[in-house]
Amino acid sequence: MSEKSDVQQKLELSELVSLCKRRGFIFQSSELYGGLNSCWDYGPLGVELKRRVKDIWWRDTVQFRNDVVGIDASILMHPRVWEASGHVESFHDPMVDCKECKGRFRADHLEGDKCPECGGELTEPRDFNLMFKTHVGAVADDASAVYLRPETAQAIFVDFEQVMTCSRLRIPCGIAQIGKSFRNEVTTRYFIFRSREFEQMELEFFVAPDDEERWFEYWLDQRLNWYTSSLGIKKGSLRLRPHEKTELAHYAKGCSDVEFLFPFGWSELEGIANRTNFDLSQHAKFSGKKIEYFDDLSGQKFVPSVIESSAGVDRTILTILMDAYDVEPERTVLRFHPDVAPIQVAVFPLMKKPELVEVATKLEKDLRKQFRTFYDVTGNIGRRYRRQDEIGTPYCVTIDYDSLNDHSATLRDRDSMKQKRVSFDQMIAAIGEAQSNPDFWSQSQ
Amino acid sequence: MSEKSDVQQKLELSELVSLCKRRGFIFQSSELYGGLNSCWDYGPLGVELKRRVKDIWWRDTVQFRNDVVGIDASILMHPRVWEASGHVESFHDPMVDCKECKGRFRADHLEGDKCPECGGELTEPRDFNLMFKTHVGAVADDASAVYLRPETAQAIFVDFEQVMTCSRLRIPCGIAQIGKSFRNEVTTRYFIFRSREFEQMELEFFVAPDDEERWFEYWLDQRLNWYTSSLGIKKGSLRLRPHEKTELAHYAKGCSDVEFLFPFGWSELEGIANRTNFDLSQHAKFSGKKIEYFDDLSGQKFVPSVIESSAGVDRTILTILMDAYDVEPERTVLRFHPDVAPIQVAVFPLMKKPELVEVATKLEKDLRKQFRTFYDVTGNIGRRYRRQDEIGTPYCVTIDYDSLNDHSATLRDRDSMKQKRVSFDQMIAAIGEAQSNPDFWSQSQ
Repeated sequence: MSEKSDVQQKLELSELVSLCKRRGFIFQSSELYGGLNSCWDYGPLGVELKRRVKDIWWRDTVQFRNDVVGIDASILMHPRVWEASGHVESFHDPMVDCKECKGRFRADHLEGDKCPECGGELTEPRDFNLMFKTHVGAVADDASAVYLRPETAQAIFVDFEQVMTCSRLRIPCGIAQIGKSFRNEVTTRYFIFRSREFEQMELEFFVAPDDEERWFEYWLDQRLNWYTSSLGIKKGSLRLRPHEKTELAHYAKGCSDVEFLFPFGWSELEGIANRTNFDLSQHAKFSGKKIEYFDDLSGQKFVPSVIESSAGVDRTILTILMDAYDVEPERTVLRFHPDVAPIQVAVFPLMKKPELVEVATKLEKDLRKQFRTFYDVTGNIGRRYRRQDEIGTPYCVTIDYDSLNDHSATLRDRDSMKQKRVSFDQMIAAIGEAQSNPDFWSQSQ
Repeated sequence: MSEKSDVQQKLELSELVSLCKRRGFIFQSSELYGGLNSCWDYGPLGVELKRRVKDIWWRDTVQFRNDVVGIDASILMHPRVWEASGHVESFHDPMVDCKECKGRFRADHLEGDKCPECGGELTEPRDFNLMFKTHVGAVADDASAVYLRPETAQAIFVDFEQVMTCSRLRIPCGIAQIGKSFRNEVTTRYFIFRSREFEQMELEFFVAPDDEERWFEYWLDQRLNWYTSSLGIKKGSLRLRPHEKTELAHYAKGCSDVEFLFPFGWSELEGIANRTNFDLSQHAKFSGKKIEYFDDLSGQKFVPSVIESSAGVDRTILTILMDAYDVEPERTVLRFHPDVAPIQVAVFPLMKKPELVEVATKLEKDLRKQFRTFYDVTGNIGRRYRRQDEIGTPYCVTIDYDSLNDHSATLRDRDSMKQKRVSFDQMIAAIGEAQSNPDFWSQSQ
């Protein structure tokens, strides 16, 4: 992808956005009413892709590990949380207003000192907080103001002591969470890359203060590899970029981004940071309660340090889509890893004849218990293959007239377009093997 | 449960709330800061229970059916959506203010015409909308006001045409969604039964206008049975209650609630309603766009009617917890169906000896690939069994000194407390069989 020109790359993004809308992966929220800027809905295929990404992350981060547990905290939290975290004080952009046309702009994005719309005089820059504010209870005053969380991480810090007590975990250990966050971004762009409502997968991994460096390195390695090993993203399109000293938050000792080569350049997919004990210390200070860990091995008490892995669900989905997107002369293919594909198996009767339809629907029903399936009877078989290629379905099964006698069907591979004849009672096993064995299609039947 | 007195039942709820907090199922949001009223966090066990409920619903409602697809729409939507749906106009409670102490109360809950707090004079009742309002973009004026959705259903209606086109579904068919909704309830109560932030599982099933009654009956039957067949809730604690004519929304032709016998009485777990074509017609009217379905069989165009199944995730979890909660003289047990239990298998070395710990940790690691597991080495074995009983773990595996020679361990059943000796290499299969075969524990080894 890095060999393509800028124009080609931007074209690819706009083609992908159009495919996503047309085939029901992702479209703008409330499109019937002209859309809500920077909010997106996941359609029938998008929701399955999203479920897969979240399930695989949870499996690898929580289920398969004996040192991490999960939580699912509410989006609305006590407003003091955002004072302690620094979001009330510092989570803002500098904005200017035009005194003539009343337009509002980001001060650091302006190129002159006049309004870019009407040329009018501008006010001095003022800070505009990125948190969405609302009110709970019956009275809309300052005391009832709450924010939609701008990140899921703070809930983990606020719940830290409770989770440690009930789970009986010992440090080093982590708490993981998947959930929606909201940022009232002034500049939103690149499809689902930066939107006002988005979903995060965050892990806060708590360690002894003298153990920070080792675990920071460990998680850098784990997280970079995850995109390749669990989601099938090509290694060459991923990199780790350590933050410059000037980019670092004042409390962070180190931070690296996992970046993907998007059509608009290398951009952040996930941040891995050594946040030291800043967050826990702040919440201890603002709540007036002690937050400490007693280490039975050393006999010491300390405020744990934390290594954070903060990944975006939507950015991961955009990465999967971009990485899988391939245009051949004869077809467009989404080369999804079989494990993330929204549809795993499509089943077709060769023609719309009752005897073929009967057998095909029965087979589809059986496969549906094991796989995400789709049944299609419309159009010639080549066209039906193309439709599945375009949405990334790895396997198609076609029932033909021979099937009525040999109780077998043609299993077809998306990527190589190779085909194998497989008996009905071996179909589930064969698809399972095709998913796990790279030599499956080159082996004789 | 119906034989217990009111006091006993209320006691049960408060004991369950305390167990949920102590063991990490559910606790109040932001407890470190004194809590945020009526918002709840799911801890390590609660989040697993919640994941199971949502996964099982999705599996049964979307994956296993060939006539339903899913979506995942954004929480923030275009404000016109809520004008079309009637929420801006009608989704409110009548409130009065005290002219003395400035307290605010629900007019229909007052017993006199004075302030219940200070006895002061009250204002006339005014409508208080239950939707949370916030603002998108840089300017907080009326034009930028949006609401946190009070239900997930409207996104399905708004996206109806797009989803029908891209999924190529034909009526009768449905669109399903799981997601958070928000209501600024003045009266919140009964733990997670009514909270300001909650999660819904909604299915909108679209049918021809002359087919409403048949599908309404079909979904009543499906949905009532789901709680028993898929979640293991006892039949006797569930019922269908048809709404009285006076309870029905003006556009609904029929509605029944699935109710569960909570400690505070029979209460709604899910609503199943024939909403006619009200919602689609309203969105057509407010958007100025046609929303119609062309039926190729009859050659007719019509606005589809919709049968809605609207279930609460949190209420379902409260139901599962209440239904499973059992206090015996010697122990407290959560008798979860094995399919929903947060932890499926706990593994214990009989004593904290290196040779036992080594074997037990290895076995736990193997089981972890298949099951949600927990490893515990602390306390005597009886105490460890009790701890697992209390969180509803159906199976415990104990490694003893014999295990070092016979490569077997003791598998113990939560409900009957029966035990079987099972070899390591048969353990996964044995647990699988124990889950699916009710006679497993009465069969000889």
